[in-house]
Amino acid sequence: MSKTVVIIGGGPGGMATASRVKRLRPDYNVIVFEKTRWVSFALCGTPYYVAGIAKKLEHLMHYKPEYFIKNRGIDLRIKHKVESIDPDTRTVEYVNLDTGEKGKVEYDYLVIATGARPRAYDFFPEIKDIEGVFTLSHLDDAGKLRNYVEKLGSGKAVVVGAGYIGLEVAEALAEKGFKVIVSEMFNQVLPKALDPDLAKTVQEHLRSHGIEVLLGAKTTGFKADENGRLVGIETDKGFLEADVAVVGVGIKPNTELAQMVGAKIGQTRAVWTDEHTETSVKGVYAVGDVAETTHLVTKERIWAAFATNANKMGYVAGTNIGGREAIYKGTALTAATQVFGLVVARTGLGEEEAKKKGYNVIAVSLRSNSRPAYMGDVEVIRFKVIADADTGKLLGAQALGDQSAFWRVNVISALLEREGTVWDLFQTDIGYHPYLNPVWDPIIVAGRLFQRQLGETPRKA
Amino acid sequence: MSKTVVIIGGGPGGMATASRVKRLRPDYNVIVFEKTRWVSFALCGTPYYVAGIAKKLEHLMHYKPEYFIKNRGIDLRIKHKVESIDPDTRTVEYVNLDTGEKGKVEYDYLVIATGARPRAYDFFPEIKDIEGVFTLSHLDDAGKLRNYVEKLGSGKAVVVGAGYIGLEVAEALAEKGFKVIVSEMFNQVLPKALDPDLAKTVQEHLRSHGIEVLLGAKTTGFKADENGRLVGIETDKGFLEADVAVVGVGIKPNTELAQMVGAKIGQTRAVWTDEHTETSVKGVYAVGDVAETTHLVTKERIWAAFATNANKMGYVAGTNIGGREAIYKGTALTAATQVFGLVVARTGLGEEEAKKKGYNVIAVSLRSNSRPAYMGDVEVIRFKVIADADTGKLLGAQALGDQSAFWRVNVISALLEREGTVWDLFQTDIGYHPYLNPVWDPIIVAGRLFQRQLGETPRKA
Repeated sequence: MSKTVVIIGGGPGGMATASRVKRLRPDYNVIVFEKTRWVSFALCGTPYYVAGIAKKLEHLMHYKPEYFIKNRGIDLRIKHKVESIDPDTRTVEYVNLDTGEKGKVEYDYLVIATGARPRAYDFFPEIKDIEGVFTLSHLDDAGKLRNYVEKLGSGKAVVVGAGYIGLEVAEALAEKGFKVIVSEMFNQVLPKALDPDLAKTVQEHLRSHGIEVLLGAKTTGFKADENGRLVGIETDKGFLEADVAVVGVGIKPNTELAQMVGAKIGQTRAVWTDEHTETSVKGVYAVGDVAETTHLVTKERIWAAFATNANKMGYVAGTNIGGREAIYKGTALTAATQVFGLVVARTGLGEEEAKKKGYNVIAVSLRSNSRPAYMGDVEVIRFKVIADADTGKLLGAQALGDQSAFWRVNVISALLEREGTVWDLFQTDIGYHPYLNPVWDPIIVAGRLFQRQLGETPRKA
Repeated sequence: MSKTVVIIGGGPGGMATASRVKRLRPDYNVIVFEKTRWVSFALCGTPYYVAGIAKKLEHLMHYKPEYFIKNRGIDLRIKHKVESIDPDTRTVEYVNLDTGEKGKVEYDYLVIATGARPRAYDFFPEIKDIEGVFTLSHLDDAGKLRNYVEKLGSGKAVVVGAGYIGLEVAEALAEKGFKVIVSEMFNQVLPKALDPDLAKTVQEHLRSHGIEVLLGAKTTGFKADENGRLVGIETDKGFLEADVAVVGVGIKPNTELAQMVGAKIGQTRAVWTDEHTETSVKGVYAVGDVAETTHLVTKERIWAAFATNANKMGYVAGTNIGGREAIYKGTALTAATQVFGLVVARTGLGEEEAKKKGYNVIAVSLRSNSRPAYMGDVEVIRFKVIADADTGKLLGAQALGDQSAFWRVNVISALLEREGTVWDLFQTDIGYHPYLNPVWDPIIVAGRLFQRQLGETPRKA
């Protein structure tokens, strides 16, 4: 019997769900409501649109709306906003934002894929009225920012918040010809991602490329001239003149509709989901940036606003709705960026984070050449692995360097998923080629460094 | 109490052993006999010396002899050949190849690190007397080959055998200005490393770079002119004119000394070792290309002549001799090469190999972009994963593409070491960044392809 699946939000999570349901059940009526004109969008790509690497905003959509409609048979309604949900009648009320026309639809399954929004407007309500202040949380934001900086041509830019997107947009603005300050409240860049030791190297790298990095600076306000144009940012470390500012001080999940349907909000303030990505309300799923999931290492509840997570949750939700059981074990918060050629990657728990959680932490750090000196073009790799000294269980890894830094982190991520230990680092057969890595790969060296402290072989019971 | 450790062979395995013993037991007398003037050498680097990327042969030594002697306190004797061993008196007889002087030394521990030698001279004894025919199994070979081709300047080259080194030297000779034919007895390049489907892509790649690839061609002899200079190679597919030939038709372990001491030769014809890298004779260890080890996936005995394997075996032997227990679980035969910019990597069992071993094989293959199209510079990645359809257990992987191909294979290698299954591919949290990979990484896509056939979740008992 055919059923109706209503999906609220056409981002990666929503569209992955829709596509998966249609693949398994072409007979199901799959309706997606998306309030913007963008679907299946790559928010991670927005800094590269600002930088001009991505030529058109449209290119940041993996597939265009027509593709989902014509090739996948999805009833995709862009510029449609869901205004309310009645869980008793299982009815969604929506409005067509172009025509103002309203409508209702009943659902058998509901998928909340409403994403997240910037917290900047909570902290700094004044920025809504100041010309020259931007957030970068959707494609249109990137469009506006690029237009604005191209119109200005050059000047002073301040990026508030040194998260992934903050650093990426700082690079983009620098390459557009702006003098850029990154202002961060914490005492390091990437405070949620990296331990301070590795963050320090990233800071030096940014500075060596002309970015001013201001740490431990709390932003207190934004100042405009009489025409409402930005003149600068007030911080407790002084006033920063700026022609343009990008505020990346975190996001929060859009849980309003989920709450309307009675779905439980988890301890992370995102929508609680189980391993099927189902919420506390039967038949209602939540995927992507709005949803809470499980930390693969700690098994704690975690909120991971990453595209990888959204895609997998969508696949799993769609599979379950489509009638086959699929599970999502969760995220290790594996993530990466690249700033001025330096790849930064991390997975699992950081050293400081693991200590706070009460682990008896052991961490090893090393520097290595990216390949044998005789091959030339050698870069320096930083690699750090974090483990539980009591059990030898791996907890996380962080790396800096070339592309290989990212992949070593992924190797550790695979070991985390298998609940691997420090002794697996030596025993894993990492390949070697003079073009690609040193014969004693940093992964193996990290294993030896652990073994020096925890013993060459796992403790016998 | 101090002991004497005699190590025969100063390659990566021998020197890793020596260094490790000295680190744990600086009081031990560690003597290394090496018949050449090279130690701790990177044989994998020889094609890059021929190509001129590595400038000097000396650069292919990770450390110079003086470093081991002065900094590590190793009694390293280069140009010393061990002629015999008396296991009863635990005595080694050696000769100084420079002076002809002979000597004896008693050992408490003996390490056989005698490496391997080319089989070319067994198959084609005539090549010893033909000018212009080379093997590439030691540093001096690379020196001679480079001198010869630089003297010739240009001409026709034939590489007999399309293994890793064969393809790498083919590229080197092409870049030196030679017209190169690679002649291979099997019907594909890299017959021991790749399945035919991926090998086909490598063949097309070689041909697109001007290399003639002749498959299924058995070499029957080498022809010289009246001056003893090579004129060509006779094959059952015709005569191949050549000014220079490089013969890479396999190597065999140098087991003579191991046999003299009574060490058991394994079914692979290399020296049998246990997980401590000890031979069947107590106190006698074997490491590197002379030694047999265990296949991480099949648990069968395997002979793996790779630098990675040699280094790890040396570390483990040295640790055990130094008084701490260490184990080496074995190799997955993870290996990689790069030819004309195409990275080729593999681990574990290939599809054909796994079938021959009686597995109920399931393999998934895919092509993927290396990153989102909007980032530009997109390359095509080939990725293939092999598993056991009965259990879902991963068996191996092969990949072609950029550097990431190598690393995806290493991720699979980590899962192999942890006895992972196809369901781990989806659950492993592979990171994503637009510069580095597609958001649906080929590893995750491979997981989905397996799940389509084997079920979305592991079978319940």
